[in-house]
Amino acid sequence: MAGGSCAMSMENPVFKAFVTYAVIVLVKTMAMSLMTAVTRFKNMSFANPEDSAGFKDKDGGKLKPVLNNPSVERVRRCHLNDLENVLPFVLIGLLYVATSPPLASALLHFRLFAGARLLHTVVYLVPVPQPARALTFFVGFATTLSMAYSAAAAVGFAV
Amino acid sequence: MAGGSCAMSMENPVFKAFVTYAVIVLVKTMAMSLMTAVTRFKNMSFANPEDSAGFKDKDGGKLKPVLNNPSVERVRRCHLNDLENVLPFVLIGLLYVATSPPLASALLHFRLFAGARLLHTVVYLVPVPQPARALTFFVGFATTLSMAYSAAAAVGFAV
Amino acid sequence: MAGGSCAMSMENPVFKAFVTYAVIVLVKTMAMSLMTAVTRFKNMSFANPEDSAGFKDKDGGKLKPVLNNPSVERVRRCHLNDLENVLPFVLIGLLYVATSPPLASALLHFRLFAGARLLHTVVYLVPVPQPARALTFFVGFATTLSMAYSAAAAVGFAV
Repeated sequence: MAGGSCAMSMENPVFKAFVTYAVIVLVKTMAMSLMTAVTRFKNMSFANPEDSAGFKDKDGGKLKPVLNNPSVERVRRCHLNDLENVLPFVLIGLLYVATSPPLASALLHFRLFAGARLLHTVVYLVPVPQPARALTFFVGFATTLSMAYSAAAAVGFAV
Repeated sequence: MAGGSCAMSMENPVFKAFVTYAVIVLVKTMAMSLMTAVTRFKNMSFANPEDSAGFKDKDGGKLKPVLNNPSVERVRRCHLNDLENVLPFVLIGLLYVATSPPLASALLHFRLFAGARLLHTVVYLVPVPQPARALTFFVGFATTLSMAYSAAAAVGFAV
Repeated sequence: MAGGSCAMSMENPVFKAFVTYAVIVLVKTMAMSLMTAVTRFKNMSFANPEDSAGFKDKDGGKLKPVLNNPSVERVRRCHLNDLENVLPFVLIGLLYVATSPPLASALLHFRLFAGARLLHTVVYLVPVPQPARALTFFVGFATTLSMAYSAAAAVGFAV
C-alpha cells in the first residue's frame, strides 16, 4: 500500500474545523426533513395515503394526499437545493482537507460556505425578494468550486 | 502538513465495519433506481418521450410520458428519502470514524442505522400503516444526529 | 486509537487520481444547477413567485411560477440522476481508495465512471434515442457496484 501521513486526523486543525462545519451544514440539511413534516401537518398536505389516513378533510370526509401545496413544495425545494450543494461541499471538502491547505484559507472557505448556506435557507423560507437567494447560492457555489480547483491542482490534476 | 496516524485504515476495526455498513446502505439506495425502472415498465409510465417512444398505449396510439403514476412516485419518494438520510449518514459516519469512537458504540450506531433504513424501505413500499414509517425514519435520523454530535464534540466544536 | 498508515494521502497515486476524477464528476453535477437556471430563463419558467416577480408574461401581466416546463424538468431529472449516482460513486470511491486497490484497476473504474456519466448528461440533454441513456447509466452503475463489492470484500465483509 502506498500510504503516508494522514490529514484526516485529530492532530490536524484543518480537519478538526472541517468536522464542525460539515456537521453544521449536514445537520441543517437534515433539519429540512423536520421542517417538511411540520409544514405538511400545518397545511394538512401529506404525500402518501397512509399518512393522510388518520385525518378528516374540512367536509368531514377522508383526507386525500396532496402533492402540490405551495408551502410544502417550497420547503422541499430548499431541501433539494441543500442536497445539490451541501453534499458536494462536504465531499469536495474532504478531498480538499486531504491535500493539506493552509489553515487560514481553509477556515475562510468553510465559514463562507456555512454562512452562505444558513442565510440561503432563511432567505428561501421567508422568502426574501431576489437577488438575495441568488447571491447566497452563488457564494456557496463559488466557495465549493474554489476548494475543488485547489484540491485538483494540489494533486497535479492527476488522471 | 499537520498529519498523524489515520483512522481510515485497514488496521482499524471501526473503519472496517463502517465500510461494510456504508456499502450496504449505499447499494440499497442505488437499488431504488432499478426499482423505479421496474415500476415504470410495470405501469408503462415513463418520464421522457424518448423512453416511451418504443411503446404503444392501450388504444394502439403512441405512448405519452406519464409523470404522476402513484406507484412510480412512491418508489421515487422512497429513493429521495434515502438520498436525504443515507448520504448524510455516510458523510457524518466518515467524520465520526475519524474521531476514533469506541468500537462497541460505533457498531451500535451502524447497525441501528442500517436496520432502520432497510426496514424503512420495506415499510414505505408495502406500505405498512403509520406510524411504522415515521418510527423507522426517526431511528435512522436520531442515530445520525448522535454520530454528528459525537464527532463535533470529539474535535471540541473547533471553528 | 487504532490507527495505521493512510491511503488518503498525497503520496498515494490512487488517491491523487481519485481526487481529480471525483472533482470532475462533482463539478459536472454542480454545473446542472447553472444549466437549470439558464433553462428557466430561456423558458421564463421559474419555480418561486419571488423569482418570476420581476418579469412580465406575454400578455404584459405578472409572470406566474411554472412548475412543469418540459425543458426545465428534463435538466432537473438529469441533475437528480447525478445526485443518485455521482454522490454514491464518490462515497464508495473514498472507501474503495482506503482499501488500497491496485492502481490500474482503480484508474479503470474511475475513468469508466467519469466517461459514462459525462456521456449520460450529453445523451439526456440532446436527447439521444434509447437505449443510449440506459447504457451510459448502467456502465456508471456497474462501475460503482464493482467498487462497492471490492471495498466490502477487502474488509472481509466485517460487520
